[in-house]
Amino acid sequence: MNITTLTARTDTLVVTWTDSTSTPFPTIWLRDNCPSGLHAETHERLLDLLSIDEAPILTSAAIDGETAVLIYADGHISRMPISLLNAHRPGQSRFDAADISAQHWRADHGAANISRHAAAFILADDFALKNWMQDTAKFGLTIVDQLQDRTNAGVEIAERIGFLRITNFGSTFEVVNKPDPNNLAYTSVALPLHTDLPNQEVPPGYQFLHCLANEAVGGGSLFADGFAMAEDLRIEDQEAFQLLCDVAIPFRFHDENADIGVYRPVITLGSKGEVIEIRYNAHLAGIFDMPAEIMPAYYRAYRAFMAKTRDPKYRLTLKLKAGEMVVFDNRRVLHGRDAFDPSTGFRHLHGCYVDRGEFFSRLRLLMHETDVAIA
Amino acid sequence: MNITTLTARTDTLVVTWTDSTSTPFPTIWLRDNCPSGLHAETHERLLDLLSIDEAPILTSAAIDGETAVLIYADGHISRMPISLLNAHRPGQSRFDAADISAQHWRADHGAANISRHAAAFILADDFALKNWMQDTAKFGLTIVDQLQDRTNAGVEIAERIGFLRITNFGSTFEVVNKPDPNNLAYTSVALPLHTDLPNQEVPPGYQFLHCLANEAVGGGSLFADGFAMAEDLRIEDQEAFQLLCDVAIPFRFHDENADIGVYRPVITLGSKGEVIEIRYNAHLAGIFDMPAEIMPAYYRAYRAFMAKTRDPKYRLTLKLKAGEMVVFDNRRVLHGRDAFDPSTGFRHLHGCYVDRGEFFSRLRLLMHETDVAIA
Repeated sequence: MNITTLTARTDTLVVTWTDSTSTPFPTIWLRDNCPSGLHAETHERLLDLLSIDEAPILTSAAIDGETAVLIYADGHISRMPISLLNAHRPGQSRFDAADISAQHWRADHGAANISRHAAAFILADDFALKNWMQDTAKFGLTIVDQLQDRTNAGVEIAERIGFLRITNFGSTFEVVNKPDPNNLAYTSVALPLHTDLPNQEVPPGYQFLHCLANEAVGGGSLFADGFAMAEDLRIEDQEAFQLLCDVAIPFRFHDENADIGVYRPVITLGSKGEVIEIRYNAHLAGIFDMPAEIMPAYYRAYRAFMAKTRDPKYRLTLKLKAGEMVVFDNRRVLHGRDAFDPSTGFRHLHGCYVDRGEFFSRLRLLMHETDVAIA
Repeated sequence: MNITTLTARTDTLVVTWTDSTSTPFPTIWLRDNCPSGLHAETHERLLDLLSIDEAPILTSAAIDGETAVLIYADGHISRMPISLLNAHRPGQSRFDAADISAQHWRADHGAANISRHAAAFILADDFALKNWMQDTAKFGLTIVDQLQDRTNAGVEIAERIGFLRITNFGSTFEVVNKPDPNNLAYTSVALPLHTDLPNQEVPPGYQFLHCLANEAVGGGSLFADGFAMAEDLRIEDQEAFQLLCDVAIPFRFHDENADIGVYRPVITLGSKGEVIEIRYNAHLAGIFDMPAEIMPAYYRAYRAFMAKTRDPKYRLTLKLKAGEMVVFDNRRVLHGRDAFDPSTGFRHLHGCYVDRGEFFSRLRLLMHETDVAIA
């Protein structure tokens, strides 16, 4: 978008664009973002914002090619790129290369339609890495297949994105039945749908479960899109949805080496009202302690969400094979498993996490890189 | 507190305590927390909450020693410890061993009064570790001294608490002036007061800066209690305080290997309205993009907070010596440094972070452990 006119109005520059819309830019913003105020090497700001007036007085504004030349009463002259003004109109949502809308799914999506990506391509090629990550961000669930038969093969895929998130369970974990377990994952019982570690201030972002063996009878994997369940609940039962957004409940994990807990709601909304996080884990939910007046209504709401986690309408089931890895957004997609009989064969998943911060950082870099490659 | 009477009211148990107060417990809560519903080994819940009624009918309630015996219409019998009912009255805030109130400080606290703890005691003794951590949680700033003259000596202290927080700068970082810096910390210029990495979804919790050498002219360290500044602003300028709580601004760090950004407010409040987090870093603040209508007011608020970061009223200054380490809550205490002249001597800090989750987990475990030791 180009500029037709610039109007200097003392403490505001009014820009009129070629589509006839116009945008006011307060002069304090213009001075704060004058390109002369950036460190040449680190590109961090050096301008001392307190060294300028609260409302600098603009005396003239003129267009010079791709630049707006702004002259102030204190003598300062700014050369502002018109592209910068266009990209940063006040109140306009900012373009983010990593901004990918969640595409909700339910059982009718079909386990056979979960997006699959071959490990070798992800390892070798940035375009393949980017495509897989975009699918994972969009659906919250993908499968990486044809992994090499090594314990670390799944971790190497995860590390293509970024460093692993460490938790009190370590940087990687083994889902096998163990003696003296400190967590139900380490038994052979069924695990109802849940998200991992809602007791953490920020639960792990993306989870990677690499199947090394799955020979026991039972032990199928279950997945459901928590965003789809929450959005359906919003339509079906507005009061329940609102209570799950508004009331923080305790989550806690406690063993000999850790005692980690937080109060958070089951559903978290983003700035546009969209669902951006689900915390649901019946085993790690602490003892509810909201006031007695709202407790029965809260239980009703919580059970309404719980009922959705049991509803086949939302559930995809699959039996992972050795050499396959499921990758899912642990703050969106609930996972679980059927019980299995450890006497009938070995079941072993090797797991790790990469947080949302690292995931979207890598995705932004890949988008810049591949955009340049295409351009 | 003991119980005088139990009254069964269909869907509610009313407990009257010896101080004559009474507490209603909805029966759904009582059944949800019946001790029979926990896994014997992991202590996680096994009860299927959907297997019981929305409002189970209580037919009788009686006291048997330290236990309330509750009989339901469906035949279920609960033996609820009275201590559990007492500790979990609905609406009552929960006891948390790690709940330590922030004690705000200003320049008149005096740099000489920053709490000091000797490294050898922290390494050897859990009581010393606990005392140091409690001071650090309370004031947000302590000094560990008499560290051994090894690069890793500070990290070993941090790891007494828990594992290190990894960021795009690695798990540890060197604050020295470097060629081709990607961050102003790696130059010799002054660093105004700031918090580290407000561009992360959760900025690093506690920061550890171990001084290995500080022989250059200049390079003094500056600290200010962000909670004190925010609370003073709340009193002096309510509108500014509110805007800093309500308006999310962009923070971003971008180099060849990372592109990490979030929108967050400068001040975050907890559930009781208390300040629980400050994000302030003029160099990592992105280009403001709130609507033009509120932009001038927001700049006024932001500059009011900024002015506090310059006000000597809030600032402690000290020159770290080799063998000393500052430890501070990076989500509360702002830090900075004076410029230094690298031609006059070497200045080298070795830094790392441990997050709040790990910090409070360790503190809870230490409190349980030392409570038991005293009892």
